[in-house]
Amino acid sequence: MTSSRPFAALILAAGKGTRMKSDLHKVLHPIAGRAMLDHLLGVVDGLGPAHKIVVVGSGREQVETLVQARGGQVVVQDPQLGTAHAVLQAEPALRDFAGDVLILYGDTPLVEAETMSRMLGRLRASDRPAVVVVGSRPEDPAAYGRIVADDEGVIEKMVEYKDATTEERAIDLCNSGLMAARAEDLFPLLARVGNDNAAGEYYLPDIVMLAAEDGRASVVIEAEPWEMAGVNSRAELALVEAEWQKRRRLKAMADGATLVAPDTVWFAHDTEIGRDCLIEPNVVFGPGVRVADGVTVRAFSHIEGATIATGAEIGPYARLRPGAEIGEKAKIGNFVEVKKARFGKGAKANHLSYVGDADVGAGANIGAGTITCNYDGYFKYRTEIGEGAFIGSNSALVAPVSIGKGAIVGAGSVITRSVEEDALALARGVQDAKPGRAKRFREVMQAKKSGK
Amino acid sequence: MTSSRPFAALILAAGKGTRMKSDLHKVLHPIAGRAMLDHLLGVVDGLGPAHKIVVVGSGREQVETLVQARGGQVVVQDPQLGTAHAVLQAEPALRDFAGDVLILYGDTPLVEAETMSRMLGRLRASDRPAVVVVGSRPEDPAAYGRIVADDEGVIEKMVEYKDATTEERAIDLCNSGLMAARAEDLFPLLARVGNDNAAGEYYLPDIVMLAAEDGRASVVIEAEPWEMAGVNSRAELALVEAEWQKRRRLKAMADGATLVAPDTVWFAHDTEIGRDCLIEPNVVFGPGVRVADGVTVRAFSHIEGATIATGAEIGPYARLRPGAEIGEKAKIGNFVEVKKARFGKGAKANHLSYVGDADVGAGANIGAGTITCNYDGYFKYRTEIGEGAFIGSNSALVAPVSIGKGAIVGAGSVITRSVEEDALALARGVQDAKPGRAKRFREVMQAKKSGK
Amino acid sequence: MTSSRPFAALILAAGKGTRMKSDLHKVLHPIAGRAMLDHLLGVVDGLGPAHKIVVVGSGREQVETLVQARGGQVVVQDPQLGTAHAVLQAEPALRDFAGDVLILYGDTPLVEAETMSRMLGRLRASDRPAVVVVGSRPEDPAAYGRIVADDEGVIEKMVEYKDATTEERAIDLCNSGLMAARAEDLFPLLARVGNDNAAGEYYLPDIVMLAAEDGRASVVIEAEPWEMAGVNSRAELALVEAEWQKRRRLKAMADGATLVAPDTVWFAHDTEIGRDCLIEPNVVFGPGVRVADGVTVRAFSHIEGATIATGAEIGPYARLRPGAEIGEKAKIGNFVEVKKARFGKGAKANHLSYVGDADVGAGANIGAGTITCNYDGYFKYRTEIGEGAFIGSNSALVAPVSIGKGAIVGAGSVITRSVEEDALALARGVQDAKPGRAKRFREVMQAKKSGK
Repeated sequence: MTSSRPFAALILAAGKGTRMKSDLHKVLHPIAGRAMLDHLLGVVDGLGPAHKIVVVGSGREQVETLVQARGGQVVVQDPQLGTAHAVLQAEPALRDFAGDVLILYGDTPLVEAETMSRMLGRLRASDRPAVVVVGSRPEDPAAYGRIVADDEGVIEKMVEYKDATTEERAIDLCNSGLMAARAEDLFPLLARVGNDNAAGEYYLPDIVMLAAEDGRASVVIEAEPWEMAGVNSRAELALVEAEWQKRRRLKAMADGATLVAPDTVWFAHDTEIGRDCLIEPNVVFGPGVRVADGVTVRAFSHIEGATIATGAEIGPYARLRPGAEIGEKAKIGNFVEVKKARFGKGAKANHLSYVGDADVGAGANIGAGTITCNYDGYFKYRTEIGEGAFIGSNSALVAPVSIGKGAIVGAGSVITRSVEEDALALARGVQDAKPGRAKRFREVMQAKKSGK
Repeated sequence: MTSSRPFAALILAAGKGTRMKSDLHKVLHPIAGRAMLDHLLGVVDGLGPAHKIVVVGSGREQVETLVQARGGQVVVQDPQLGTAHAVLQAEPALRDFAGDVLILYGDTPLVEAETMSRMLGRLRASDRPAVVVVGSRPEDPAAYGRIVADDEGVIEKMVEYKDATTEERAIDLCNSGLMAARAEDLFPLLARVGNDNAAGEYYLPDIVMLAAEDGRASVVIEAEPWEMAGVNSRAELALVEAEWQKRRRLKAMADGATLVAPDTVWFAHDTEIGRDCLIEPNVVFGPGVRVADGVTVRAFSHIEGATIATGAEIGPYARLRPGAEIGEKAKIGNFVEVKKARFGKGAKANHLSYVGDADVGAGANIGAGTITCNYDGYFKYRTEIGEGAFIGSNSALVAPVSIGKGAIVGAGSVITRSVEEDALALARGVQDAKPGRAKRFREVMQAKKSGK
Repeated sequence: MTSSRPFAALILAAGKGTRMKSDLHKVLHPIAGRAMLDHLLGVVDGLGPAHKIVVVGSGREQVETLVQARGGQVVVQDPQLGTAHAVLQAEPALRDFAGDVLILYGDTPLVEAETMSRMLGRLRASDRPAVVVVGSRPEDPAAYGRIVADDEGVIEKMVEYKDATTEERAIDLCNSGLMAARAEDLFPLLARVGNDNAAGEYYLPDIVMLAAEDGRASVVIEAEPWEMAGVNSRAELALVEAEWQKRRRLKAMADGATLVAPDTVWFAHDTEIGRDCLIEPNVVFGPGVRVADGVTVRAFSHIEGATIATGAEIGPYARLRPGAEIGEKAKIGNFVEVKKARFGKGAKANHLSYVGDADVGAGANIGAGTITCNYDGYFKYRTEIGEGAFIGSNSALVAPVSIGKGAIVGAGSVITRSVEEDALALARGVQDAKPGRAKRFREVMQAKKSGK
């Protein structure tokens, strides 16, 4: 923000969210793996607010942890008498605040920093509007309230759809609800809002008319409809998620990653993807993933809390869980799960393995069906695998255990004691063959079966 | 149905289905895991029909089992001389039937009960129309036959696209083919239909004109185009499947489940999903699944014939097969297959396991890579795992076998005899290490390789 | 080609591809698993060209291998002074060529043989046009150059969007860039093209005007916009991939395969699919796959370089890698990886297995969790499994090893020596139970945990 004037961000989150049919507070439902409210708080934080106030109805206890962690405060609106009344609940918290107030909505999570900046910038322009309203022109304006404004954006009238004339309904500039006003203007105006309407509610947009009565102009600025998309149902939650994903995918491609089927790659809010990465169809990124340049992520991979270094190859069907650190040119193959484990340069686990709480040295090869037995029901233990070690297929490494550099573990072994460098370890039963026994077994079983 | 007048449902299924390029009868191709014909029979059954008659051309033997199981009968049309002729084949079966006849199509499977009820209701209205026709207004009317009707829906003319004037083609009300008529009207009208046309076929819509000649009005009622979507090719089959899935996904969300990426969740015809469930991208539900409230199904899960209790967590990459019963807060993790197995409250199988024909007690923990060996090539045997038991990773439990409550099986064991409560069982080889042997092996192999 | 006149295919690939943000040459980015350039060369080859010349700017070394393997030659344009200049670089290579020249673009890979044939056919028509230009009418003509032509397609003017009048911009016939001309016309015309424009470049479309100055007419033929789609960014690469996939899916369905969710099935350029196959959602086909009739491929399968015989059942979650040959009615189930392995008729590997470098006889059954240990870090070895053999679950077969016909391997065995026909082989530890030990372990651990 170039201006030195402080601002407070007010996020309304008092809606009941009935249509969500959920025990979880509406604004905590996630988009891209992050609560809607947190998306907004994150964007707001980037602008350096003096205050962050979240107005809730019920569910304060659900919301408070998140808001406090972000250094904001929660204010309760009870009873809930409309949006103007909701904003008024923040007055005590802003009693001596001489700055601007940005009014946002917890269920409208896609608003970008640039739009918030424009709201404040317009409010601070030399013509000093009383209120800045954000409008948008959705493809289907439906039953949104309309904004009647002149070419300069000066608002003549704001009208609810149900009260609008046919002419007004033909206007496609809709009220998003987002507003900015100076604190010294806002609260006196709010105090004058009445509730003489069918619902008996105090409506926030009324402050525009009240300002006009004082001879103060309000103005509209426009934003893209997708940015103003609100969430009142799970179907709308899915639409907002889809919109977020669509933008994120385009960005990943613009940054130099190939997404063979962009619609089937899901990013989390904080996914980082390098250049010349190839992402096959059907990849899910959970939170906390950093992918370096030149990485291939094959189909059906699921990656959370992991870092992947240059040139590594992941999947298909690889599951990287939090704490997976995959080194340069390392390979994690199909049906392999990695958790809290570091793979050194060029190390490989190509098939059907579970590698948890482990350190795998550079160039080590973990055979198919290998399991690190890291849990005894009470504690977790670590497995160390040295550089260049070779773990034969179908082995169980019972942690805590360490396999020395260059050591070999024979296939099918259950390793319970550490193996020294360059040693060959075997821990398996002795093979015994009973000639003809399979044939006799079949004869007996077939008799049984036919006897049935 | 409020009326006490009986009705017969007639489902035409005599089309050759050539464009399907299939050995399977067209009406047996599935939508949401259920034959198209069965969708229709199911909806019809909900309305309490007196008769259900399916008219087939070839492939009677393929269709008969399903129809008879539903208490209906199959009638063969041979040769196939048009839709009017097809309906006439049902006359013997309805000889003394004094009721209404609903004419449906086996390849138009999305028709809803409400539409069928409206058809019968309209037929029974006081103005007693001769025929009720269902029309719809598809986005692209293409070459469908058009219905010329007045504002009350009284039909003036029904015209094939190829015979229509430019004016008539501009009409977007199309004939879906669905009709209702009284049995006593229907069959005499059909008997009068001629085949004086290019194809030499007897066309069902002609009964509307013939009724008009008798001074009897016919009427059109409208239905949504998606409901009238027909299947003549695999591409259309996919479109109807997509339409069905779209509606089912919206319903799941309206009922309170979060679908992160709705377009990637596939439901079966009978899937039940609770409230506050979270379904990640890419989940396939086969038939017979019941999911309670608060269940999380993570990405890439495949679930058939399973019940999942409150708070359970499934996937990613979990495969639940028929007979899987997952208890409250139980967890089935990645690359785990469960078949005919019950998991008690809080029991877990988190990684790379096959649990089949088993009973897993509450709180039991099944380690990574565990296999229940339930099959000897002839019979299946059960594995019992007691409450709180702990199965070490990479174990094989050779059924029939029982692991007592609180027992522990050491990692990598092959358990062939039952383990008593609270016992620790181990069944694995003895570890043996050969110092320096790995190094020598490498030297030999490298020499071999370079000697190549 | 019916005409005996030879033609040369000239593929321009000198664009910098900056927006791709890639170290890989733009025309080598794959569509359906095959370089864009290779798609074009493949189509061209089908028409029997006399010459194939690819004009590159930088990156010659990346492109050359592919082009030479196809019997073409690479020509370098340096410096890069525009499209006319690019075509001129091919002149030396075509010095004595008396034939037609087809000008294509390496980043426009969807052009079909039929369109190329039409270009040549039009050029050879009796009115002998100087140049044949391919135009298309995209939904959004955007900033493409426009073609002003009469009803017979005779071009009056070709105009860059930025130079076009409002009237010309209203024309929706756009220049795709593809052209055909006789060699004897083309190079003299090119020599006359000037660079008197803002960019100082030599523009190929100018040859149309220059021909007109000589009194020679040029003509436009039209093609579908999707065929003319070009790739300048990864987002456009994804769009072209999507277009290709869409067409391929429709073809698969028209040929008699059911795709439950067509949008989630990805084909490679050479995938072959039979009739009455059922493909569940989310299946990825890599290059080199042949699927016979009546095969079921269940969800989440990933198939590359494999052949699958009639009636086989694959997946869900099956990964077939190059060299997998799945016999009639064989079954490869969930979390099973098959590589360079042949499965005989009716053989099965249903769960959690890795079968590599193996031969599995007809009717053999490979239990859950079986691993063929085919690699010792240096060489790969084969496993032979005889007809009707039964491999118990969780077994490791240490190759080279052979399991005789009808032999049984006990669950959990590590097999290091071959097993003869009809024998029963066991290789596992002896089970030992310590009564009460699990209970004592819990007491100790709980104490430890609470002592923390």
